[in-house]
Amino acid sequence: MSEIPEKTIERLSEYRRTLLACHNQGITHIFSHVLAGIHGITAVQVRRDLMLIGFSSDTKKGYDVEVLIDFISGILDSPNVVNIGVLGMGNLGQALTKYFNGRRSKLRIVASFDVDGDKVGHEIDGIPCYGMESFEEQVQKSDIKIVILSSPTSIASELVVPIINAGIKGVLNFTSMPLNFPRGIFVENYDITTVLEKVAYFVKEAEESTDAQN
Amino acid sequence: MSEIPEKTIERLSEYRRTLLACHNQGITHIFSHVLAGIHGITAVQVRRDLMLIGFSSDTKKGYDVEVLIDFISGILDSPNVVNIGVLGMGNLGQALTKYFNGRRSKLRIVASFDVDGDKVGHEIDGIPCYGMESFEEQVQKSDIKIVILSSPTSIASELVVPIINAGIKGVLNFTSMPLNFPRGIFVENYDITTVLEKVAYFVKEAEESTDAQN
Repeated sequence: MSEIPEKTIERLSEYRRTLLACHNQGITHIFSHVLAGIHGITAVQVRRDLMLIGFSSDTKKGYDVEVLIDFISGILDSPNVVNIGVLGMGNLGQALTKYFNGRRSKLRIVASFDVDGDKVGHEIDGIPCYGMESFEEQVQKSDIKIVILSSPTSIASELVVPIINAGIKGVLNFTSMPLNFPRGIFVENYDITTVLEKVAYFVKEAEESTDAQN
Repeated sequence: MSEIPEKTIERLSEYRRTLLACHNQGITHIFSHVLAGIHGITAVQVRRDLMLIGFSSDTKKGYDVEVLIDFISGILDSPNVVNIGVLGMGNLGQALTKYFNGRRSKLRIVASFDVDGDKVGHEIDGIPCYGMESFEEQVQKSDIKIVILSSPTSIASELVVPIINAGIKGVLNFTSMPLNFPRGIFVENYDITTVLEKVAYFVKEAEESTDAQN
């Protein structure tokens, strides 16, 4: 079960959110092609992903929404709450904190860190903000496993060693600087600019092919 | 040239940011394996991506950084500035606006839209905020091609028809609701929760395999 590809994990997370939305609307069953259509992929892909995690369903009504939510949660979620710290409480850090907290209860932002004297020692949206000098101490105290990195890109690489030393196990890096960590620390480099440039590229391509047809 | 895969486009965008950082540090040449190492991929992958866009380099010093930046920019960028609108100026919308503007000059956020009377009619970080009722009009006036969707997830699906009607060509959707658009409108569904859940999953997996070894 440890061999589930990253892309499948992403899709499982996406399926679950769709299923939760369906569940909230009172929908009890969903066909693979309906779930696939919502996500813009093929039904074969959905069935393959679910087969990979050992979920099988042969009802004529499609997948049982509630059962499938629980099954996916059993794969994705830790049995316990996972504590998260935010490194860098600028606009992006604050927006991400508001965005994540009050959502999934299993992933909880419990502390933030900054160097700005106006922020350190205060609570921001109910989350205490500490100075970087107490990062390691607070990670131990609060049992923080994952950090969200939303510092300025220019200082991102300076944070690698403190993150390693503090015993962090996962990094979600929102800066524009791709970071490498030793084996045992999972890092996802997630520069938002990339995806905007991608959208712009495909818009440009579509326009050029329209122009060529005219 | 219209057949470049989405993943290659993403990597080209990432390579360019790394190359720009190198250029700013006075680095003039870079080997494929160095570029690959920074991005945690293989040199073969880097060379394959660059071959795909027709870039070849056979110098013993590696790729010429400046030449490669220009070459990738010729692929990714429109000749003109692309105007972008932000739908939903809550915390995430405001953070994204600050994050994107003042970065790449070819992609420019020129307008935002909200339903909050405290925001409509004002400038937020120098960007005018309009009411949703003038969305179509402002898209025409400002020649907006792409929208960033940062509204509450609960109203995301209500925005599909206005986006189509306004003639938008690309959508970067940050809500948790995956959206489908007719052919001709490129959409990237980019729920940030997915990636945090993914990091948490791989942290959990690593812990379980460590526990199993002990």
